[in-house]
Amino acid sequence: MHENVENAQQEDEVVEEEVDALAEVTRERDVYLDDLQRLKAEFDNYRKRAARDQESLVARAHERLVKELLPVLDDLGRALEAAEQHEEAKLEEGVRLVHRSLLGLVERHGLSEIETEGPFDPHVHEALLTQPGEEAEPGSVLQVLQKGYRLGDRVLRPARVVVSAGGSN
Amino acid sequence: MHENVENAQQEDEVVEEEVDALAEVTRERDVYLDDLQRLKAEFDNYRKRAARDQESLVARAHERLVKELLPVLDDLGRALEAAEQHEEAKLEEGVRLVHRSLLGLVERHGLSEIETEGPFDPHVHEALLTQPGEEAEPGSVLQVLQKGYRLGDRVLRPARVVVSAGGSN
Repeated sequence: MHENVENAQQEDEVVEEEVDALAEVTRERDVYLDDLQRLKAEFDNYRKRAARDQESLVARAHERLVKELLPVLDDLGRALEAAEQHEEAKLEEGVRLVHRSLLGLVERHGLSEIETEGPFDPHVHEALLTQPGEEAEPGSVLQVLQKGYRLGDRVLRPARVVVSAGGSN
Repeated sequence: MHENVENAQQEDEVVEEEVDALAEVTRERDVYLDDLQRLKAEFDNYRKRAARDQESLVARAHERLVKELLPVLDDLGRALEAAEQHEEAKLEEGVRLVHRSLLGLVERHGLSEIETEGPFDPHVHEALLTQPGEEAEPGSVLQVLQKGYRLGDRVLRPARVVVSAGGSN
């Protein structure tokens, strides 16, 4: 009888431990499930917002740049008026103004002209023609047909050039 | 004794059920924890990628627009050359070309001029001056001092105008 009671007590303890463990693990499971659902909802919202943000980001980037072009359009309008009235000096001054303001704008945005002095560089130059040139080093740039531009480090457009073939070709 | 055995059996069953339940809930907990950790990592990566994407998105938006400006710069360069050589007809034609290409560019990007015919509209006009005007309706636009522009639906810059104060003011 004494032994039976002890067994029963032990069994009760085991049951109690199991019940405690079950309660603890159930609590953990519920917390994780809750976290998981919350994180899923947050992620979904983030994804939607990111898509919206990207659209408006591109729109605002364009808007800023287009807005910067308005003074250039103003200068150009005045130059056109001068052209219509055949005020040549004013027209010339106007064109110089447009050039300065447009060049300033694109330079602020990282545009720079590709240098064409010296030897032909296939990374930044495109040879459209080769010409004999008595006085020029073979492989040097003789003439620029179209200016080239970099944006930051990237070549946006190579300079189109005529290259010297050297003296006796 | 018989009762004792029955009790013990019942208790065993209870213990077994508890053990089964614990195993099941533990499995669930582990699955949720695993999902949670995986989702957290995915979310982190997404956030980092989104930040990088946004930067390059803005950079590419700018690059596209700046690249579109290159032909305008070319036209402008030719107009400047004509100006330097005092070839007036060529200069005028050049300015018109620059104007057409720049206007085409900004229109493709959604820019439009704000109309200034008719009555003053405070949503799109800014009155810099009020002048008596015998022939004009009071509150109508007499003169445009600076053109205004919309980008899509938004007023990028209001048109700056002179407004009629009517006849006998």
